Amino acid sequence: MPHFKLTVSYDGTTFVGWQRQASGTSIQGLLEEALAAFDGQPVTVTGAGRTDAGVHALAQVATASLARTTDAATVLRAANARLPDTVRIVHAVEVPATFHPRFHAVAKIYRYRIWNEEVLSPFERAYVWHVPGPVLNVGAMAAAAAHLEGRHDFAAFQTAGAETTTTERVVFASRITGVGPLITYEIRGAGFLRHMVRGIVGTLLEVGRGRYPPAWVGDVLDSHDRARAGPTAPAAGLFLVGVEYAQPDL
Amino acid sequence: MPHFKLTVSYDGTTFVGWQRQASGTSIQGLLEEALAAFDGQPVTVTGAGRTDAGVHALAQVATASLARTTDAATVLRAANARLPDTVRIVHAVEVPATFHPRFHAVAKIYRYRIWNEEVLSPFERAYVWHVPGPVLNVGAMAAAAAHLEGRHDFAAFQTAGAETTTTERVVFASRITGVGPLITYEIRGAGFLRHMVRGIVGTLLEVGRGRYPPAWVGDVLDSHDRARAGPTAPAAGLFLVGVEYAQPDL
Repeated sequence: MPHFKLTVSYDGTTFVGWQRQASGTSIQGLLEEALAAFDGQPVTVTGAGRTDAGVHALAQVATASLARTTDAATVLRAANARLPDTVRIVHAVEVPATFHPRFHAVAKIYRYRIWNEEVLSPFERAYVWHVPGPVLNVGAMAAAAAHLEGRHDFAAFQTAGAETTTTERVVFASRITGVGPLITYEIRGAGFLRHMVRGIVGTLLEVGRGRYPPAWVGDVLDSHDRARAGPTAPAAGLFLVGVEYAQPDL
Repeated sequence: MPHFKLTVSYDGTTFVGWQRQASGTSIQGLLEEALAAFDGQPVTVTGAGRTDAGVHALAQVATASLARTTDAATVLRAANARLPDTVRIVHAVEVPATFHPRFHAVAKIYRYRIWNEEVLSPFERAYVWHVPGPVLNVGAMAAAAAHLEGRHDFAAFQTAGAETTTTERVVFASRITGVGPLITYEIRGAGFLRHMVRGIVGTLLEVGRGRYPPAWVGDVLDSHDRARAGPTAPAAGLFLVGVEYAQPDL
């Protein structure tokens, strides 16, 4: 059974999220259906991680084993022909059967986009958090974001009730840049808790609004208390940018 | 009655076009309804020109006279609050009653986007003409595009049956640029015939595919024969970028 690594891009706007659910359309479900139609039997798709309803991906990574003898280019074309244009396999490569998209991932990159202007462009409506009103202090947000780099207990930034063995995670980079009305947050880390990026962005926004100084984000982190952090930022602004592996050719 | 110049941005994907029609949702119709609800009586919106079904605008220009005493910032906010998020007034300014968005326009700029790669990004699906297959010759397309600059009879590039007094138009600039899979055509002219930009793009694509040399576009132009030009490119790739007036503050 050939085993394929699939790099998948999707506009999350209309989906219930990556993971197959009891009701609603999921990206995993669409991929499994498209590949099953090609393979002539049920196919299981394993993702590098879940993305929530409304969250987008430039390059999610998933694997699937097929029964049929085929090659990666054929799998890409056949699956894309059966997928809606909101979901595309942008790259496919055959990998050893031992490759696991989640266990072997060494880093993930997320991007969050904020539109800080009174009027929101129609072309950005599904891809940003629209924050009209006073101009945000991007410098203060950048200083606050830097407090999150390193190994920390991120309990203050996860959704209450999420089940994890540990809430300690390593963040390699946590950076904010602003160009005109667009403020972009990028975070690269070894792993993420549920809603962690959106909790961080909601917290950074409090700093951008001048309600707290940058160092407050360090206090929130140290408190391990979700109630002290800012609100969870909306899903539409969040993009899974990519998943990194130790062997770049995998 | 205060008279307002409105700069309007819209994602044309779901609309029947700028102009109000017997059925379907038009941008003009949405603006008239939003402004009428604010003004308390019917409002007529006049555009700088029509855009077809599925065509987008970054900065269409329109005017409306209101009965109520109000200011531009209030009109912008009130209308945007009543418009779908696919249509936004991005700028509003009070202008003399004599200002006419079509008659006073000195130039319009259109942009057409082509995606020349096997797989189309989900985020570009409504904003490009997807042209997979062999890599297009952008240099040849650019040379061909330059043939259209100047005063010419563009009869070969208008939709058959369109009513106009003359098919002569002045094109100030006609340029192609390519960055990765994205090929962008920009044309700035004093006026345009119906489907002219899309007819030009369909013709330039024939050159990009190597079916004809760049000079062939000059032959098509001189023929005044629509049948000799390429097919009309799809609406989704076309954007009205802006409308220019002699007095920039208007």
